[in-house]
Amino acid sequence: MQIALVGIGKIAVDQHVPSIAASPDWELAATVSRHGTVEGVAAYTQLSEMLDAHPEIRVVSLCVPPVPRFALAAEAIRAGRHVMLEKPPGATLSECHTLEALARQHRVTLYASWHSREAAMVPAAKAWLADKKLTRFTVTWKEDVRRWHPGQAWIWQPGGLGVFDPGINALSIVTEILPDPIHLTAATLEVPENCQAPIGAQLAFAHPTAQVDMVFDWRQTGDQTWEIEAETTQGTLKLLDGGARLQIDGSEQGEDADALKGEYPRLYANLARLVARGEIDMDLAPMRHVADAFTLGHRSLTEPFHE
Amino acid sequence: MQIALVGIGKIAVDQHVPSIAASPDWELAATVSRHGTVEGVAAYTQLSEMLDAHPEIRVVSLCVPPVPRFALAAEAIRAGRHVMLEKPPGATLSECHTLEALARQHRVTLYASWHSREAAMVPAAKAWLADKKLTRFTVTWKEDVRRWHPGQAWIWQPGGLGVFDPGINALSIVTEILPDPIHLTAATLEVPENCQAPIGAQLAFAHPTAQVDMVFDWRQTGDQTWEIEAETTQGTLKLLDGGARLQIDGSEQGEDADALKGEYPRLYANLARLVARGEIDMDLAPMRHVADAFTLGHRSLTEPFHE
Repeated sequence: MQIALVGIGKIAVDQHVPSIAASPDWELAATVSRHGTVEGVAAYTQLSEMLDAHPEIRVVSLCVPPVPRFALAAEAIRAGRHVMLEKPPGATLSECHTLEALARQHRVTLYASWHSREAAMVPAAKAWLADKKLTRFTVTWKEDVRRWHPGQAWIWQPGGLGVFDPGINALSIVTEILPDPIHLTAATLEVPENCQAPIGAQLAFAHPTAQVDMVFDWRQTGDQTWEIEAETTQGTLKLLDGGARLQIDGSEQGEDADALKGEYPRLYANLARLVARGEIDMDLAPMRHVADAFTLGHRSLTEPFHE
Repeated sequence: MQIALVGIGKIAVDQHVPSIAASPDWELAATVSRHGTVEGVAAYTQLSEMLDAHPEIRVVSLCVPPVPRFALAAEAIRAGRHVMLEKPPGATLSECHTLEALARQHRVTLYASWHSREAAMVPAAKAWLADKKLTRFTVTWKEDVRRWHPGQAWIWQPGGLGVFDPGINALSIVTEILPDPIHLTAATLEVPENCQAPIGAQLAFAHPTAQVDMVFDWRQTGDQTWEIEAETTQGTLKLLDGGARLQIDGSEQGEDADALKGEYPRLYANLARLVARGEIDMDLAPMRHVADAFTLGHRSLTEPFHE
């Protein structure tokens, strides 16, 4: 199937383009971007031009930042195209609800993708936790913003989410692997004096049986930490490296062959399946937790951030 | 039907107690509150004691502040009781989703009440707007926090919502009367230096045909303003006094007899109907818009607030 990619920035070049190139399902047939292009692929700067010029391209994948995403997604859906959204699926929860209603109305596929849910050992972690009684659950997501988001000024603006941009990846895994629902009860957001979005966050959640805490931090130099630890009455699970590795009681669990594929190739395999079935996959739970943190969080100002 | 009221504070005394007393459907059979009581009504300080002592009371109405509400609501639902929630229905969207799932599981009624939707002229405004093309839509919600929230320190804390406590009333009317969905595109939140919650907010929304703006302000002395103005290609609608009065092209529209009943009596009539039918009414749209404003809003610090 032919697909168009909208927003040729860092994440498109690093992940989307190679994943589409390696996929048996997809052919990259056009790009839309103010500046970016992909060699050998028809390039447009306006979505409307691409949609008009290529009625044969039935699927559009959006990797622009969240704030401009709604208008582009709505335009593609109104033009009868299936749409995949990078995470988070929008700048607001309300626009995601509107978009889902629009996709139902136009009978097209809409896929709110969460790439971290496709990390290699997430399914195994979910399966292991399914019948365990949780007593303590800790998420530690600490990375260096300068290393992962060079020059991305929008992440510090309203709607850019700050440290919740990676934090929502953790939340997308958590909401996938935990059998019981959680909800935020308290949060502290550390916001640099010269920014609108937090650089650090500490979150406490209610859960039927466990104490649940999360720490997100964008000031981590040296080793980067993306870990989830689940203590249960029948042992302890650790998801390491953002879900790529799994330990049960300290013992490393093997990967299966499919796990080697990588997150974005699996997203595009999911997209092919959703389009074939005419389905919508728009799980907003990770984004709801982020909105809850912005609503309920206690803000403290911290030292200015300069890239 | 017998009903118990949890949280005997200002809103309970001003609205819930007299509305229940005047209702043909309800009898106030017990209260639960740390300090407040209602003369002649069995008083408890713990919900669990009341639930144990009164298995015959099948319905519980919660008018505690949003932050402690979830635990009380979940306890009542797990005890098989029907539950009505004051607005907003919780401190987080996620807990509201969890609560709704719990109510379905226990087959009880759950009612997220929005009292402003029951203002006298809201149904007439909704009916008039249903077939009009909107060109401009403006909400002005300006009141004096000192007059309406004396001594309520929780409104300034995280989760207290600040000026969105009244603003969510406007949003509950807007989401009821507008036929098309809106979503926030930009917001400024003015937060007093010594508070966590905003005292003023300016909001801009996307709509299929109209420019939509809202101003919420808690610093209004003198005349209080709760107005919604809708310009359409077929005339202008004004909802005044929080929905109690309606003008079409400047001409005052008459109230019908039922409109004289008042907001809270209508909420309790709705509750009686929902319980009789075994239904859940948990519309989170107003709260989603508030969460969107906290997520997407640009914060500016303003002068400290002292009551």
